[in-house]
Order: sequence, then C-alpha cells, then structure tokens
Amino acid sequence: MNLQQSKQVFEMPHLLTYYECDDTGHPSLSMVLSMMSMVSDAHSSFLGMDTATIQATGGGWVITGYEGEFSPKQPTFGDRVILGTRAVSYNRFFALREFWMTDPNHQVRYAHFHAIFVFMNLKKRRLMSIPQKLITRFDSPLKNQVPRLKRIETITTEHSHEQTYRVRYFDIDVNHHVNNARYFDWLLDPLGGQFLRTHQLVRMVIKYQREVRENSMVTSRFQVIRAADRLTSRHEIVVAGQKCTIAEFQWINR
Amino acid sequence: MNLQQSKQVFEMPHLLTYYECDDTGHPSLSMVLSMMSMVSDAHSSFLGMDTATIQATGGGWVITGYEGEFSPKQPTFGDRVILGTRAVSYNRFFALREFWMTDPNHQVRYAHFHAIFVFMNLKKRRLMSIPQKLITRFDSPLKNQVPRLKRIETITTEHSHEQTYRVRYFDIDVNHHVNNARYFDWLLDPLGGQFLRTHQLVRMVIKYQREVRENSMVTSRFQVIRAADRLTSRHEIVVAGQKCTIAEFQWINR
Repeated sequence: MNLQQSKQVFEMPHLLTYYECDDTGHPSLSMVLSMMSMVSDAHSSFLGMDTATIQATGGGWVITGYEGEFSPKQPTFGDRVILGTRAVSYNRFFALREFWMTDPNHQVRYAHFHAIFVFMNLKKRRLMSIPQKLITRFDSPLKNQVPRLKRIETITTEHSHEQTYRVRYFDIDVNHHVNNARYFDWLLDPLGGQFLRTHQLVRMVIKYQREVRENSMVTSRFQVIRAADRLTSRHEIVVAGQKCTIAEFQWINR
Repeated sequence: MNLQQSKQVFEMPHLLTYYECDDTGHPSLSMVLSMMSMVSDAHSSFLGMDTATIQATGGGWVITGYEGEFSPKQPTFGDRVILGTRAVSYNRFFALREFWMTDPNHQVRYAHFHAIFVFMNLKKRRLMSIPQKLITRFDSPLKNQVPRLKRIETITTEHSHEQTYRVRYFDIDVNHHVNNARYFDWLLDPLGGQFLRTHQLVRMVIKYQREVRENSMVTSRFQVIRAADRLTSRHEIVVAGQKCTIAEFQWINR
C-alpha cells in the first residue's frame, strides 16, 4: 500500500468494520463522513498538532458544508481502504479540504468530496479567525476568495414528507455539539428502508447553517424529484421553525 | 507495543477516534462494544475465517449477553489503546469470549468483560449448532456447562422512568438485525445528560432476550437504586409489552 503523507496531503489505511456499514453491507454516509473527520484529525496530528494543541486555542474546527460524489462501486464490510485528505486552500476564516476513500491500489475512488471548515470559539460558540499556527503547517495556498458549494433549491412543502427526531445524549460529541455525522442519519432515515435498500447515493451537497442543540426536537423534511435522467432528493433539518441544515442527494438504482 | 496473536488470544492496536467518544471525551459504551465486535471479527479473520467463510454457513454470530467492569480511569479521544479477545470455551450452542481494552503497555485495563455468543441461522432467524469449522481453529476448551451471567433483578414499575425510541434504518446492521451496540444508546440515553456527565459506569450486565425488529417502537425503562455503598441502575427494553433486553449498571461519581 503506497500512502502519501506530506504537509498538504495525508493518507491512512483503514479496515472497514461492520459498525461502519449499514444493512447493505457498504459504509453508511454518516460513517464515511466520520472516517473523513478521522483522517483530517490524523493529518493534523501527523504535523504535530494534536487535540491538546487545538484545544489550547480555545476553539475547534467546525464543518459548514460538504459537496462530493460516490462511485457506484462501494467497498464492503471487512475490506481494506485508503482514507485521504488534502489541505486545498485557506483564508482568514475558511479552510477548504479535499477528501477521498479509495481501494488499497488507488484504482477505485469510492468517495471524493470537498469540505469547508471554519474555526469556532467553543465557549462563546461563535466564529474566530483561524489561528495561524494551526494552518501554516499544512503549507496550503492562501486564497482570498470564499469557497462556495453548489446552490440547493428550496423544497416545496406541499410534496414533502417529514419525520421528527429528539436529539439524544449520544448525538453530542467531544466539542459539546451535535456530531456532524448524526445529521446524515436524520436526513436519510425518513426516506425509509425500502428506498435506501434499492437506491444508491452518487452525489451530495450539504450545508450546515445553524447548530442543533441537545434535547431539541428536529424535523427532517424531504422531497423526491424524479426527472428523466436523474433522481434527486432535497432535504431540510428544521428546529423550532428555523432551517438548520439543507442537503441535496442524487441517487441511482442499486 | 507488544501484541498477543494466537489461536486463543488476539490483540490489535487501535487509535480512539472522536466519533467513538461521547461528550465526556471518553469512549461511549456502545462504541466500546462495537470495538469488541471488531476485535473478535479480526481474530476470526486472522485465523482464516473471513466474512465470506462465515456467511457461507448460512448463519452468523449473535451475542446474547455481556458482563464486565470498567476502570475509573478511561482513555480519551486520540489515545492509542489495545483491544484484545480470548476464546474461553465453547459447546454445541454457546461460545464464551473474554474481551479487554488496555493502554499500549498493558498497564491499565480500561474495560474487561465476557460475552456469550450463539450461532443463528440468518434466514430462519433461529439458533443453529455452531459449525465445527468456525470453532475448532480457536483451539478453546469444550465445556459442556452452559455459561451464565449474573442474575438481574426485575425493576419495580412504580419508581421507574421511561423514554420511547423508534428503530431507525441505520440501527440495522449487515446481519439485518438491530446492531447490538445501539441497545446501549437506548438503555443509557433515558438517564439524561446531567446523570451521564456526572457519573461513570464501572460494572455492567446485559442480556439480549428477544430481537428488536426494524420500525418497532422501543420503550426503554429504568430505575435508579441508591444504596450506602453503591449506585445501581436497572433497565429494560420493551417492545409491544415484551421484554427484549435487560441490563444492570453500577456507577461511581465522575
């Protein structure tokens, strides 16, 4: 296994465990995103920036959105994969990062996407400028342009369906906010087992707009749009009437 | 790191990721149990019995119960740990396995417990005798005695509290049944953030009696018993009036 490990690019091997896979035997979306957080943490750690270094700044990295693609061919529980990440660019408030999951020979790119990170003061729960010492080691280019993700259309409520979820204690992570990956279970679960077993995700855009807090009641609303050449689902996570997360997924038949 | 890897005993190193830890920064119980499933899968795989070998028998390993202890000192997100397992004994229908999680020097035993496995025909969803070729390679002793876990007292409903949960699509695992680890989130969540942040689990017994199916509504009921020298919580998972899982936990102040 030939792994890249440098300032900008970092790869690690990973054995897909059964608890990272869903009923289809392939990794669940929430676990793919969790694995991506793991490889970006490992990249920081490889460059000498461990959890303690980050926590000493009083802040933490927060993801504001993802956009990417999945291959129709997906790995299965027990398979070895490579998880990879690249620090693409940054400016005072935003850092753009690329992620991938491939087979051990870099032949099949199972997942490939970009994520936008901001840095948040964890006490005041508001944005802070990215501490220089947490970004310069990645040696990624400074780009003043603000990174943007694809626009997501608003769903029309008359053809939507919804399901409610209570935020549970174990949805909260070490940063004391709802773990990013949990949103994917809320987003996808309302589609139902029948849909999820017969369709496979090939594209996604997700934007986190407002934080969901512990003990909140979450409404996850979606709409499926069937066009001749594509099947799309649009999603909203709403708390107390306010949109917290919006997402769009594209599907193919399994 | 000095790892044991033999027919009976198998250890693997593991880096604790943020998504295996809860709000306290320490591994959540459901993730500890998931990691233990991972090391027992790795043990099978190390002895040449991979997922395909097991699936070819038409059955799968199912856990009927756990009993064990946790050290007051627990590892933190980003720590390296050793996950270990030993094939203790078996008979026609039961296999007994020991599990541990220690620091990299085997000095602190963070978790230590036993689990009872049975083998289930996954189509008929009933017990089958353990296939010889899946057990003999572990070279563990044949013991005709049926392994037993500590008795759990019935909770008295007049002092109990409860919370309901709908089984979600992503609670279902590759064996097409509710993932064992999910039960721990249902069992513990009703205790609430306040209790879980100020108390630490030191002992547990859990018995799975009936399978919980997809789309079921689960009631998780508990009762806290405060005695001079110990704090205990007793739990039941009930579906349609039938007890599916019972558990008892012992706690200390954090």
